Amino acid sequence: MSARILNGVAVAEAIRAEARPRIQAFQARAGRPPGLAIVVVGDNPASEIYVGNKVKSSGEAGLAVRLERLPSAATLDDLLGLIRLLNGDRTIDGILIQSPLPASLGAGSQRVFDAIDPGKDVDGFHPINVGRLAQGRPAFAPCTPAGIIELLDRSGIAIAGTRAVVLGRSAIVGRPMAALLVARDATVTICHSKTPELAAVSATGDLVIAAIGRPAFVTREFIKPGATVVDVGITRLTDRARVQSLFGGTSRMETFQKRGSLVVGDVHPGVADVAGALTPVPGGVGPLTIAMLLVNTVTAAEARAS
Amino acid sequence: MSARILNGVAVAEAIRAEARPRIQAFQARAGRPPGLAIVVVGDNPASEIYVGNKVKSSGEAGLAVRLERLPSAATLDDLLGLIRLLNGDRTIDGILIQSPLPASLGAGSQRVFDAIDPGKDVDGFHPINVGRLAQGRPAFAPCTPAGIIELLDRSGIAIAGTRAVVLGRSAIVGRPMAALLVARDATVTICHSKTPELAAVSATGDLVIAAIGRPAFVTREFIKPGATVVDVGITRLTDRARVQSLFGGTSRMETFQKRGSLVVGDVHPGVADVAGALTPVPGGVGPLTIAMLLVNTVTAAEARAS
Repeated sequence: MSARILNGVAVAEAIRAEARPRIQAFQARAGRPPGLAIVVVGDNPASEIYVGNKVKSSGEAGLAVRLERLPSAATLDDLLGLIRLLNGDRTIDGILIQSPLPASLGAGSQRVFDAIDPGKDVDGFHPINVGRLAQGRPAFAPCTPAGIIELLDRSGIAIAGTRAVVLGRSAIVGRPMAALLVARDATVTICHSKTPELAAVSATGDLVIAAIGRPAFVTREFIKPGATVVDVGITRLTDRARVQSLFGGTSRMETFQKRGSLVVGDVHPGVADVAGALTPVPGGVGPLTIAMLLVNTVTAAEARAS
Repeated sequence: MSARILNGVAVAEAIRAEARPRIQAFQARAGRPPGLAIVVVGDNPASEIYVGNKVKSSGEAGLAVRLERLPSAATLDDLLGLIRLLNGDRTIDGILIQSPLPASLGAGSQRVFDAIDPGKDVDGFHPINVGRLAQGRPAFAPCTPAGIIELLDRSGIAIAGTRAVVLGRSAIVGRPMAALLVARDATVTICHSKTPELAAVSATGDLVIAAIGRPAFVTREFIKPGATVVDVGITRLTDRARVQSLFGGTSRMETFQKRGSLVVGDVHPGVADVAGALTPVPGGVGPLTIAMLLVNTVTAAEARAS
């Protein structure tokens, strides 16, 4: 084990600490705290954990958080109607729709995100924010890639002039991550499920962002010795044999024994032997995503008030 | 000389031929041809050549082309006012603002492109079209990268599964080119002026798109033997010694003798010895850009009518 561990919890706390005076100044000026609406549709146990963390963290930081729940039988019209109300509510500065939406909405899901007022789109999923980001203009950047940039900057890891490899091309992480890294003068390669010789391509990276959602898929061969590895994956494993094969003999087995499950990333534990720096799961990218949601909401509130 | 030459003129003609029945059908249904407005501000000799080609080609194909000229002293308000008129004109389906706009407009230039009705944005520069393209959704793609995809497809050159290298990260070519190639399952590396070891990175590409605007900059060392090379650069050289050093002993010297200048691309002539396929300049990407403007205008007209 040689890789330096990048502490997402500490960096997230630093970001929150910097946001506090901004929140207080906004409150003093506007007579109300910045307001964040979180919309949850149906019941998804994984979502509940994320939503709970977002509500708790945002509330502690001084935001007014409104949790709006719709039943899983909610129609597209129900959801669009709620968004219209939130768009028109002057006490709401940021709107977050918790993913995934129920599969029954199908292609309608995109219409839901498109309906959010771009000035309240703190998740950065509206095409106009995606476009502004791609053009290198001020925009709400999606919270996970924006948080990764903060983590690298605040950990003293250079971006400009590096070769960066992004594993995964999702609209939420991979593509905006590539846009942000290009804007910061990295030479960026975007890989995906159709990339041949994926490990060899990945191993060209001074910086590797793993965002594919396949537990422990990124093994040592993917990583150039000394590279910085950012692990965006979050999968909950419940299969004992699988956990044993990955973490046998480490303290994480004890965690598994206690809880009956273990949250793991896309990066195999063996990578710690070759990487120069590495984000853990949990405690790496996750806390930063929530911190950036806070920052984006404060930024939205300030912009709307001015 | 071994590279197969990809004939942009012939492919552009094939695209125009396919657009003709669409234009006729639209005219029969709507009682008018699709309408394209081209806005030119000030006097720029290079722009005049492009504009002349666009007007001629679009008119011959059966579009109603309206050329709107403003003096170089035009203010931002003048330009925004004209765009409002064109947005509201039901006989205009596509609006193109010829770049570059006068430097006196400064950052206001972006507001001009932002003001275009996204449904008439046939150049694909509005952030909402940029965002939809980045999200892999239907959108007006900028004409040059869209034309390059057509050229590759119609020349039987595979995109999926290849490694593609895009040299240049402009909003008009490099970035949307990368988005289109990723959407087509290429593994894409975006390079730029801050990329170290640029030639070596470029030489990893099965497909290299050169869009940096530096004449003959891309030499043999940039190209893996057998790779496909697309040359987006267009620079007019007037320096005899420079032209002699690049093209001495070839028929292009005669062209230079006749005209006193020569249009050259980003790709050095020596690349023809190593590349598997190559687009010429002129006669490669340029005609495709104009053909895609035609296609985007017809698509805009059909979408607005339905």
